[in-house]
Amino acid sequence: MRHIKIFDTTLRDGEQSPGVALNHAQKLEIAHQLSRLGVDIIEAGFAIASPGDFECIQRIAQEVHGPVICSLARLNKADIERAAMALEPAEKRRIHVFTSASKIHLEKMLKKTPEQILDLSREMIQFALQFTDDVEFSAQDVMRADPEFVYQLYAAAIEAGATTINIPDTVGYGAPNEYGRIIRTIHDDVVAGRNVAISTHCHDDLGMATALSLAAVENGATQIECTINGIGERAGNTSLEEVVMAIHTRKDWYHAETRINTRELYRASRLVSRLTGMPVQPNKAIVGDNAFAHESGIHQDGVLKHKDTYEIMNAELVGREAAVMVMGKHSGRAAFRKALSDLGYEFSEDKINGLFARFKDLADRKGQIYADDLRALVDSRTDVPQTFTLEGFQITSGLNITPVAFIRLNTPEGSVEATAHGDGPVAAAFTAISQITQITPELDTYRIQAVTRGSEALGEVSITARYQNMHITGQGVATDVVEASARAWIRVINQIVAGMGKTKIATDAAESL
Amino acid sequence: MRHIKIFDTTLRDGEQSPGVALNHAQKLEIAHQLSRLGVDIIEAGFAIASPGDFECIQRIAQEVHGPVICSLARLNKADIERAAMALEPAEKRRIHVFTSASKIHLEKMLKKTPEQILDLSREMIQFALQFTDDVEFSAQDVMRADPEFVYQLYAAAIEAGATTINIPDTVGYGAPNEYGRIIRTIHDDVVAGRNVAISTHCHDDLGMATALSLAAVENGATQIECTINGIGERAGNTSLEEVVMAIHTRKDWYHAETRINTRELYRASRLVSRLTGMPVQPNKAIVGDNAFAHESGIHQDGVLKHKDTYEIMNAELVGREAAVMVMGKHSGRAAFRKALSDLGYEFSEDKINGLFARFKDLADRKGQIYADDLRALVDSRTDVPQTFTLEGFQITSGLNITPVAFIRLNTPEGSVEATAHGDGPVAAAFTAISQITQITPELDTYRIQAVTRGSEALGEVSITARYQNMHITGQGVATDVVEASARAWIRVINQIVAGMGKTKIATDAAESL
Repeated sequence: MRHIKIFDTTLRDGEQSPGVALNHAQKLEIAHQLSRLGVDIIEAGFAIASPGDFECIQRIAQEVHGPVICSLARLNKADIERAAMALEPAEKRRIHVFTSASKIHLEKMLKKTPEQILDLSREMIQFALQFTDDVEFSAQDVMRADPEFVYQLYAAAIEAGATTINIPDTVGYGAPNEYGRIIRTIHDDVVAGRNVAISTHCHDDLGMATALSLAAVENGATQIECTINGIGERAGNTSLEEVVMAIHTRKDWYHAETRINTRELYRASRLVSRLTGMPVQPNKAIVGDNAFAHESGIHQDGVLKHKDTYEIMNAELVGREAAVMVMGKHSGRAAFRKALSDLGYEFSEDKINGLFARFKDLADRKGQIYADDLRALVDSRTDVPQTFTLEGFQITSGLNITPVAFIRLNTPEGSVEATAHGDGPVAAAFTAISQITQITPELDTYRIQAVTRGSEALGEVSITARYQNMHITGQGVATDVVEASARAWIRVINQIVAGMGKTKIATDAAESL
Repeated sequence: MRHIKIFDTTLRDGEQSPGVALNHAQKLEIAHQLSRLGVDIIEAGFAIASPGDFECIQRIAQEVHGPVICSLARLNKADIERAAMALEPAEKRRIHVFTSASKIHLEKMLKKTPEQILDLSREMIQFALQFTDDVEFSAQDVMRADPEFVYQLYAAAIEAGATTINIPDTVGYGAPNEYGRIIRTIHDDVVAGRNVAISTHCHDDLGMATALSLAAVENGATQIECTINGIGERAGNTSLEEVVMAIHTRKDWYHAETRINTRELYRASRLVSRLTGMPVQPNKAIVGDNAFAHESGIHQDGVLKHKDTYEIMNAELVGREAAVMVMGKHSGRAAFRKALSDLGYEFSEDKINGLFARFKDLADRKGQIYADDLRALVDSRTDVPQTFTLEGFQITSGLNITPVAFIRLNTPEGSVEATAHGDGPVAAAFTAISQITQITPELDTYRIQAVTRGSEALGEVSITARYQNMHITGQGVATDVVEASARAWIRVINQIVAGMGKTKIATDAAESL
């Protein structure tokens, strides 16, 4: 059985999704989950993009064990040196250099001749090989490039010592068999039996990224670049969970397997959705709320009757055990620790104590605590300095009544109070908080999801905002949507104060595969 | 160029999504949009499933012109007669009969031998041909059936006079080339040049429904069954917008075209998302918020510089004109009518007057009114009897304060007031409303989306609920999330009172393709 390597680029290409901005702690948390998931390679960022990106790659290289850690770099020495420096602490490191293959990219963006690109590719791959023996090479926009030049370019990359060649469908334009045919030619005529891995990198603009990646596997590719939930620019990248489960379910067809621990897929999906604020639609394959019909509650009867008739995989296999009741307000600390551990969370005693206090509050309000409630609690745990904390709030709203919010925050100067009005209670609360903190971020997106069932469900608010040139994501969880919103807004502001926002560089050719 | 027929099953298979329940008015509104979109066939429902389904198909058959109107039917005379009766008013009608092909389905569900299935298929196709000359035949679970039996069964269907044969991948199990190979054999050896259309019906459990449908087109299929936003059971059906735009964008590869007016795609997507309460994820191809990078606002610069370099289709082509400001609070009735007409809405003077009043309220609160605001207003317009209407409400909530709601409704007995508390202001408002109306639906899902940008954005709440054996969907739009929630809840209750809920039959083999 061929082993297909899973190259996760959630932290690099995925983080380029419009409106997504992850801070270091969030990226690190995702990287740890990717390691638990068993991905082969983590593309942790683009080291030269910003000092923040550099530090973040470095921390992941230090702290995350198992996968190869990778940084992106353009074809120049500064980029490659910066990548090498960031990756230095990693046990296994990969430098991923890239250029473009199409005429339009060469002429309009890179302003180089094909010969210059060939020379530069050879030279920079060799330069990168001084820092690691694991060098990946990509040429953007292969689908629209002159095939002869594409083959020449990848042949040059292989000669120079690239150990993986990646073939990106940058604009999500390919048809599966068209892409498969290119991969076949590269496999047979360019790689021609040498020990070089062929990799796919597809975008979902026409809804076929998963199928393109698997068409490549049918034709000799042994690495798939993908992201959790398929996030990424525009319609996103290939979904990790889809390619993994398709290969798993159709081993008989693809004659291949991955090393992914599929039981961690659902947790990875929820974590990335929460931290990025990018919701997963209910009809999303594998990880959507409805993907396994018998979870809907409504149709349980039908599915139980015909389970083997209508199911091609089961929910346990992807870690979606039903949201079973785990505990109530009389549960003690030991039971709480055990429940967390069953969900795969291992924390220090300190952290558990902090979480236990919030668990108790929640249990008082909500009565029954489900697995998803615990996940929400954990994923919203404090990893941001608490410059401002919510001490009190009160809102009044109604029909033909201007909504009013009173807010009391604990600040470095002690308790401060403010009152404000707005178009709704949430807007009023935001204004009052901004009056106290003297920071008024610009709201980009505001999303609420019910985390669990029933009208006493936990509401989870995800906010993405901008402040000066920073992009920040904040989450808040509570049974009251206004409280959850206020918590998310305060979290955004605390990150701004701590300088934890992400300075995003504009999307341009330089970072789009 | 081959013409590929688009067979939309949003109202039949799509409506089987867990938690989705559309009332007649909603189904009719979607059917009208499908007609504007130019789909070739509308599968309007399953006539025998319930009296409600029957009436709804009948109304669509009466009122919606252009597409062929279709009803599903099992292989028995009662089903077929019921379908024929419902379709009677249609200009063009199709009866879609189905059975199963796999051994496990035959033995466990249908309890029939292959010979019995062959005979019954022939007999019932001929019976259906008495009512229309357009009869489609499907056999479920083809991918796991004995291929010889599959070919025999479809050959029998063609002999009996079926004009379209549909090949469902019921459980979303196929690989694109595997499915393509089956379609090729059916095309070459079973249809063998006769005038019978081959149709695809794929599910997205492994994320490849679009690719399977197009693999079928490469191998001779000329009809694709699909749904708006890819909704449907589990991970859903093939996305209409994806197959349409893939064929459009890659005419050079597929040598085919559809008759879809692509500029209506985005409106169809928004309408179905609002009415079903099924959100579309931002990274969904074609219709997701981020699908066209230059809409994000953040990356406009980069995309403007390299538009031709990074875009394979443009947003206008799918009807996603930027959310431009259309009007403010000083806009008059004529400007309002013109703006609606630009968005493709044509209403009676009465309806426009009702909408104009709400528009004025909104403009007072919100200042600038965008195209999306207007769409939200229109899509939430009243098509439900107003047994209960919101006259007043007031909520108070806060930290360590039990949320309290006061509600005043206009009821058949005049104004009635109630006060209640809850875990959050929304739950408190729901309880107060239920006290007044004496109806307490069970909440299934609760979703909020911001319809437009900024903190003064319109919030849209979608609720799905159950009451006795009815399933109901309700929407509410307001700048205040609590008000939007209360409006959605009242709308659910008004539908219950009017008996407009949908009685859902359990999912079983009988209605799963």
